[in-house]
Parts: sequence; C-alpha cells; structure tokens
Amino acid sequence: KNRGRLLIKCHDQRGIVAAVSKYLFQYEANIIESSQYSTNPEGGSFFIRIEFECPNLEEKAAGMKSNFQAIADEFVMEWRLQLVSELKKTAIFVSKELHCLREILVEWQDGDMMMEIPLVISNHETAREMVESLNIPFYHIPATKDNRLEAEQQQLKLLDEYDIDLIILARYMQILTPAFVAAHPYKIINIHHSFLPAFVGARPYDRAYDRGVKIIGATSHYVTNELDEGPIIEQDIKRVDHRDHVEDLKRTGRSIERSVLARAVKWHVEDRIIVHGNKTVVF
Amino acid sequence: KNRGRLLIKCHDQRGIVAAVSKYLFQYEANIIESSQYSTNPEGGSFFIRIEFECPNLEEKAAGMKSNFQAIADEFVMEWRLQLVSELKKTAIFVSKELHCLREILVEWQDGDMMMEIPLVISNHETAREMVESLNIPFYHIPATKDNRLEAEQQQLKLLDEYDIDLIILARYMQILTPAFVAAHPYKIINIHHSFLPAFVGARPYDRAYDRGVKIIGATSHYVTNELDEGPIIEQDIKRVDHRDHVEDLKRTGRSIERSVLARAVKWHVEDRIIVHGNKTVVF
Amino acid sequence: KNRGRLLIKCHDQRGIVAAVSKYLFQYEANIIESSQYSTNPEGGSFFIRIEFECPNLEEKAAGMKSNFQAIADEFVMEWRLQLVSELKKTAIFVSKELHCLREILVEWQDGDMMMEIPLVISNHETAREMVESLNIPFYHIPATKDNRLEAEQQQLKLLDEYDIDLIILARYMQILTPAFVAAHPYKIINIHHSFLPAFVGARPYDRAYDRGVKIIGATSHYVTNELDEGPIIEQDIKRVDHRDHVEDLKRTGRSIERSVLARAVKWHVEDRIIVHGNKTVVF
Amino acid sequence: KNRGRLLIKCHDQRGIVAAVSKYLFQYEANIIESSQYSTNPEGGSFFIRIEFECPNLEEKAAGMKSNFQAIADEFVMEWRLQLVSELKKTAIFVSKELHCLREILVEWQDGDMMMEIPLVISNHETAREMVESLNIPFYHIPATKDNRLEAEQQQLKLLDEYDIDLIILARYMQILTPAFVAAHPYKIINIHHSFLPAFVGARPYDRAYDRGVKIIGATSHYVTNELDEGPIIEQDIKRVDHRDHVEDLKRTGRSIERSVLARAVKWHVEDRIIVHGNKTVVF
Repeated sequence: KNRGRLLIKCHDQRGIVAAVSKYLFQYEANIIESSQYSTNPEGGSFFIRIEFECPNLEEKAAGMKSNFQAIADEFVMEWRLQLVSELKKTAIFVSKELHCLREILVEWQDGDMMMEIPLVISNHETAREMVESLNIPFYHIPATKDNRLEAEQQQLKLLDEYDIDLIILARYMQILTPAFVAAHPYKIINIHHSFLPAFVGARPYDRAYDRGVKIIGATSHYVTNELDEGPIIEQDIKRVDHRDHVEDLKRTGRSIERSVLARAVKWHVEDRIIVHGNKTVVF
Repeated sequence: KNRGRLLIKCHDQRGIVAAVSKYLFQYEANIIESSQYSTNPEGGSFFIRIEFECPNLEEKAAGMKSNFQAIADEFVMEWRLQLVSELKKTAIFVSKELHCLREILVEWQDGDMMMEIPLVISNHETAREMVESLNIPFYHIPATKDNRLEAEQQQLKLLDEYDIDLIILARYMQILTPAFVAAHPYKIINIHHSFLPAFVGARPYDRAYDRGVKIIGATSHYVTNELDEGPIIEQDIKRVDHRDHVEDLKRTGRSIERSVLARAVKWHVEDRIIVHGNKTVVF
Repeated sequence: KNRGRLLIKCHDQRGIVAAVSKYLFQYEANIIESSQYSTNPEGGSFFIRIEFECPNLEEKAAGMKSNFQAIADEFVMEWRLQLVSELKKTAIFVSKELHCLREILVEWQDGDMMMEIPLVISNHETAREMVESLNIPFYHIPATKDNRLEAEQQQLKLLDEYDIDLIILARYMQILTPAFVAAHPYKIINIHHSFLPAFVGARPYDRAYDRGVKIIGATSHYVTNELDEGPIIEQDIKRVDHRDHVEDLKRTGRSIERSVLARAVKWHVEDRIIVHGNKTVVF
Repeated sequence: KNRGRLLIKCHDQRGIVAAVSKYLFQYEANIIESSQYSTNPEGGSFFIRIEFECPNLEEKAAGMKSNFQAIADEFVMEWRLQLVSELKKTAIFVSKELHCLREILVEWQDGDMMMEIPLVISNHETAREMVESLNIPFYHIPATKDNRLEAEQQQLKLLDEYDIDLIILARYMQILTPAFVAAHPYKIINIHHSFLPAFVGARPYDRAYDRGVKIIGATSHYVTNELDEGPIIEQDIKRVDHRDHVEDLKRTGRSIERSVLARAVKWHVEDRIIVHGNKTVVF
C-alpha cells in the first residue's frame, strides 16, 4: 500500500518539524501518526517517527529518499524512510522450549505481526513439526559451546542467503559470538527470563525462587556483546507468592516471556523503536 | 515561563502539520512534545496537541493568537492556545468523604498538579479544617434535593467571583441541575465510584457486592446532563474476591477513586484532553 | 495418585474443622492445602476446601464417603469428596472464533489443565482440523435460532453418551434453552466478551467503542437461564485508548477472553469453586 | 475483643490440624480464617495461621498458652498466640522524605492499620509538624556515619522506654549497625526504592534511569545485616518509558514505595507473616 514511515534522530533545534512536514506536504503525503521526543529542549537529542500515507509511494520512494538528504544534511540527522509494504525478513532461533515461537507464529498467522518468516533455525529437532506445518523452512544446526564458530558459520550463511533483516532469539539458549552480534547491530532481539537487571545470566527462576521475590518478570532487549546488557525494549511482570515452586515460576514466566517478546517484535517490525545509547525510545 | 500549548481539532486533510509547524517556527518556537491522532485519514477528524517553548511568549501571545486565526480559518479548526504560566483556577466540591480531596491537595502541595485552588465548597463542615490549614477559603453551602436551586445560586456566584475555570466534584454527592452544568461545558470533572457503564447511579459498591463481581473500578468523566453518561477521561480497577464485604469494596474503591480522579485532573490542567462527541482524546 | 479434595458448605458453627480434621486423620490423610471462608462468624455460611494426600485413597474412597455422612448430617452440610485421579469429562462448544478453544487445547496439551476432552461440538466446520489433529472427536451440529431444540437434542444425546461432567462454551455464539441449562446446573462455563455487568448481551465491543471506555474486559461465569447473569467466576481487563477502533478492541479482547476462560476452567476442574447463591467462592 | 491468632511453624506431619482444631474447639473458639502451606507434604515445613473468635479470650489467654505447650512439644512447633486486642507498639523512623510516613499515618488515622504509634524518630526536623499535629511524640536524633553508635544508643533507649514491638524504616536513609538489628530480629521493616534484587544499595532511580528499564519498583523487607538482602515481604512496580527523567522515576517511585510499605506493615501487624529462612510466607 501507500504507507511510509520516517524515523529521525538528531540534535534538538528549531525548525525540524516545519522542514520535515513541508517536505512531506510537497509529496502530497498525509501524516497519519506522529510521535516525537526530546531528551532536553536545550541541546538534547531529538527523535521523531512519522507514519504517512502518500499516493504512489512505491514509485516516489527512491526520489523521496534522495531529496530528503538535503534536509538530513542541514540538521545532521540519522534517518531512515521505510515502506510499510516492504516487510522485514525475520529468522527465528529456537531451542527446545517452544512457547515463544508458538506465540509469534500464532500472531503472525492472525495477521497481527507484519513480517516475513523465511526460516526457523534450531539446535534441536523439537520445533520442526510446528514450523514445517506452516510451510516455513526449518534448519537443524546443532550448537554447543564446542562447535559455536562452525554452527554460526552455517547460520550466517543461511541468514545471508535469505537476506534476513531481523533475528529473534525465541528462547535460543546459546550465547552468540561477538562477530555474529557485530554482523547484525540492533537487529537481534532476545527474551531474557528475568526482570533485568535482576538475575542476569543463567537460571533466573531458580535464583528468583531462592531470593524469595514476590514478583517475577521477563525482559526483551537487543543483543549486544555484554550478556543481558543490551538496550531494553520491553519488560513485564506477574505476582508470585510463597506457594510457587520453581516449576510454578517457570510456568508463570512462560506466559510473561511470550507476551513481552511478541510486543517487542511487533514494535520493531512497525519501526517504533529508535536505539539511543544503551536505551530505546519506543514510539 | 515560556511554554505554550496549542490544541487543534478539524477535519483530517493534507498540510495541517506543515502549516502549523511553519507558523510556530516563524515565532522561533521549539516543539517540545507533539501528539496527534486521526479517526480516519480519509475524511476523519484530526486532533493535535503541541507543547512548545518560545522566547518571550507572554509578550507574543496576543499576536500569535490573532495571527493563527488565518490558519484556523483555512482548515476550519477548533483550537486554543494556552500559556502554561496561566494556571487554571479550580474549585473543588466535596461532601463528607475526603479521600479524593486529600489526594488532590497532597499532589497539589507537592507541585505535581499545576493549578490554583481559590476555594473549596462543601455541603458539610467535615473538610473545613483540612482546607483552611492550607489557607484555602472554605465555603459551607448546605445542599439537598430541596434547596438545590438556591444552593447552586450561591455556588455560581462564588465561581463567578473567583473566576473559576474548572470544577472538580471530589465525591460531591449532589446532582447538579442542567443549568449549572450548561454554564460550565466540559469544565466539570466527576469521579464515579464504579467502572462505567456498569453500576450507573447510586450505591454502586452495594450493587457490585450483590452481583458478585471479581473486579471493581472507578471512572472519572466530564459531567453532562445525563447522569454518569458524560465523556470518560480515565478508569481503573482492582481485584476483589468473595472475602470482600461491602465495606472492603468501599475501602479498596477509595484508593481507586482518588488515583483515577487525580490522573484525570492532571491531564485536564495539562491541556491533554480534547472532547470529541461523547468521548475523549487524551494525549 | 492418592490425592483427594473435600468441599463443604454449611452454616457456620463451632467444631467443623475439628470434626473434619479428626475424620481425615483417622484415614491417615495428610492435609496439603486448606482454604476456608465464612460470610459471618455469627450465623453466616461456612465454606471449606481441603486437599489431602491419603495412602490407598482409591480403595478407601467408597468407605470414606459413606462414613463422612454422619458428620455431614450433624452439621447439615452440602459436601463432595473428589478424587484427583478422576478427571472431569469436558465437552467444548465453539463457533467460528477459535482463540479460546486454542488456548484451552494448548494448556491441556501442556498438562496444565487436568481434564479429559472426549469431544468438541460446533455449529461450524472451522474448528474441525485443529480438533481432529489432536485425535479428539469433532461433531458439527448446525445450530440457529430456528432449529435450536433439534440441535440441542443431538447435543444432549452426545453429552449423555460421553458421560460429560463439564461444558465449556468457548465463544459458542448460540443461546441455550432453559431445559438444556437445567440439565447441567453449574456445569456450563461461558466466556462473555465484556466486563459484566457492563454490556450484557450482543456486540459488547461495538458498544464499548461507542461509550468511549478506557478499559475493556471479559467475564467467565456459570450459565443460568438469565442471559449473562450467572455466578461470575473470573474477570479481567486491559487498557484501551482513543486510538483503538472496534477491531482493535476485539483483538485486545481476544487475549483477555482466552486467559479469563482458561483460568475459570482450571479452577473448576481443580474443584476450587463453590457456588453460593448467585456468587462464587473461589479457593 | 475476643479475637486471637495462632501462628505455627513445624515439620509437616499428619494430625497437626486435627490436634490444633480440637484444642481450639475445647476452648469454644470458632475459627474465622485459616491459611496453611506446606513446602512439601513429604518432609517439608508446615505453616498455619488461624484467626479465631473465643468468648472471654482475654481471661482465658494465659491458660490457653500454657496448655498449648503440650501440643507444641509433641509436634516440635515454633508458635505464638496473639490477641488482636494487644496492638503492636510501633516506632517509625524517617528522614526528610515524608511520603511513606504520611501514608502510614493516614491509614492509621482511618483505622485501616491497627497498631499504636508511641513515637516517631528522625534525623531531621522535617516531619515534626506532621507528627506532633497528631499528638505523637517526635524525637529528633541527628544521625550520620560519624555518630552512628551514639545515635543508636539514644534510639535504643527510647525503643526500650516505649516498649516497642515493631520498627518501620519509612525512608530512613541511615544504615543500622549489626547490634541494633540483632536487638530486633524480624521486627524492623524497611522500604527499598527498587525492585530487589535489582539495584541493591544507593541511588536506585538514577541507576534505573541509566539502565533504561521500562518498569520500576519498590520492595519492603525485614532488615538483616546484609544490606537489602533480608526476607522480602512485598514488592510492586509501575511502568515508565523513555520520556521519564530521573525526577519522574522518583515521583512515580514514591507512590509505589508508600503503598508497598503500607501493605507490608499491615500484614505484619495482622500477624500474617511467617519468616522461613530468608523468605516470607504471607497468609
């Protein structure tokens, strides 16, 4: 269709909105939704996301992009213009626990998560049936601490072949190498099964149980090279109490994990997230 | 200070944002926060709220207002330009239950609710001490079904004397006459102690208890002439269970009521609400 | 296994717990979980649910039941003793919207909802594939206003054949006749797509949209002969705002409906619910 | 009145409830509310809280206590029998931020928090007016890192004089010495302004802001000698987003802190909490 999204990040200064809205008006674009934020009107950083409708957008897009560069140069902007019709190509990585994968596939089938899923990669066979029943190619690449580099070679080759824009770690229980992460900056979304920064690392539910917390959570974040330290996209929690054993925490946790990851992915594919330092602006 | 807010409502059409942002740029205004919404890009209604910072705003304001009229005429806008420094003058009406009044006064003292409170009016004496200890004039005007018109005469006179912009019914248990309401369109905020449209009218907690609901709520809305039918501003709920007697529902309800009303008032005084038909757009 | 549950309802009076716990002790039962509630210690109603572990429970059960009658007579109790190993036989009724059915089947497959599902009945073919892929018999019985009695004859015959204990209306959009309801008192669980008592009846999301509510909800209740007036088991809500069109409310609503219904069913099959008048005690 | 509460902790074993309920029945006590929990029916720990009504309880209490010892010995119980009419004597410690103190005083005035408040101690004068206006003695004891021991001497002397049962640290920003803590085991309740175990220690809101979390929280716990590591009583959270500066987090945080602390205190004074290792069972 004729929908586009313009995302901009620059130093806050007068005249940005005037320049951008005049530019869009020249292309007969109608602004549908617009969100902006400034860390500080005096010398802070400025962020804006504009969703617009524009007749014949697909033909105009290349011209619009090249003409926007003059504005971008004037205000020293980082920016991108996305066509809603160009769906992101998403690879899902999964291990043996399938609740996050299932949630994403259900939302995707219902048309509530606009993206393509060209492939699913797993270090186990558990997900094969679910994935192939939807006619999505499934690749089983065994991955352990010992063959990490070799496994990532295969993965990277597939990501390249399928021209992947976004990688979802839907409870993929392997750590990625710095080289892998560097190849996809802010394009890898993970779900961590705790309320970060509490319980960074392994076995968070066991540790939550030992600490006697009254609330557990999950956190979706972009993957960087520091474990569980990337920019947080979304978090949520549920109450637990003394009656809940580790198994109960895990069961409750699964329902938090799947909804938190699904929201984070949805916001990413709708171009609602701008990374700023180690934080996210979510419009 | 130099902050202003521009609120606009009109038919959706191309060029609104371009025209408005160019206009603000001419006055050297820097847009701090901007929210917009369109019911439908094709022929729907368009709403925008822009908060901006502008050097010497107080001197410029009159000129800005008269110059904006040309834009407003072109796009057939309903609009207003508010100076943040012009605090709304608020009258609080209260009966015997003081939890909502107390919450508002606490937030107001802490500087979290930017408005003036020139007076409090009550049909009982209960609130006098709390109000007068803050050096706010307190008026006791007995009001019952029988002397309603007479009481409202006195109230309207006071509202006029104090040049009141906003009336908060902080659990004021009297019904207002159509004439009173008509004199302050969308300037009277009520808190109803149920989750509307459930339990319209009297004794909602008793009726919630009788129905055996598992969640109770409160609703803040603008007062119109149909009882509990005005545009809803905010609602919230809490869980209850079979152990809760009517008294427990009331106690739980009080904490919902006070926070719901406080949020609604805060949004109103920050000019975040645009009424559209019988609904509110809250930016 | 050796788990049992004893549920009791009677007038509150001294000595109930002493008598019941002594009785259980005689059978070498160990109380695992116990919840009790009294509407009023002075002449109110008393409710208790005890879950216990008892060696060789299956052999002892018949004897335990007949021996409990003396206690039940003394205190004039309504009571039942359930073996956890005797799973409830559940029929699910569904129309075209499958989200509630899918949630229940997923929870059931994961072992989180202990019951048997001998059959699914629908007035459409939509659910057939999902149901039959799990080897559950699927019956398509067209049902409209016009053939209601005839359709119910077929349904009742099936319920009888399969010896059904519990009927879940998982968004089954037909009204049941009084005769059907009377045949399964407090054994039919419905999900209503609104926050009762708001929006009783048809098209609640459209009406919620028209009213401009800020929160929508869903309610699970036992079916009685007054539409949407049966004892409420569980309710939940989510926030919405002016940006949400009816379709958005429906999408958000689906996720509330499925989790509310799943909780209600789980509590029923775990014998956690005692109906009292038109309310539920949920332990 | 004639209400009592019996709290018991022991190894799980058959016959506990039978013995205890028979014992209460002998005293003509009627059980009003009973909650129990076992970490594991096979060799785990068993906890029970029984609230009962008993004619002439105050006269009988001494006899009941001495007679219960036989049961306690048989089952090797830790236990206590509390009379509801014997209110806990509570000292509140506060520094300059008064929101937690204010919440507790409001709930206490409304009769929703049943305890005595014989004194408030502060290392500043800020709270004096609020406290003395309620006729509660206020003691200003300057306390810094340097005079800690001396200040605690004065505090301990006051706690002794007033026969204090419970100490509430209502945002008292000083660290207590091990000797002070040891003198009041599980009798000191603190509110920590983060969602533990995230952000242990100083300046949690600043660190939450730096980390870019999407949810902030507060935790109420018993004080032990490891900073912020004592048994957690209650936690709660609120959503924040990229728009929230540190000041906004603090403002939002205040409303979480005050309600979390108030709930924890209420549960403590209602004898709902049993400490078990480094966790709490809250009935």
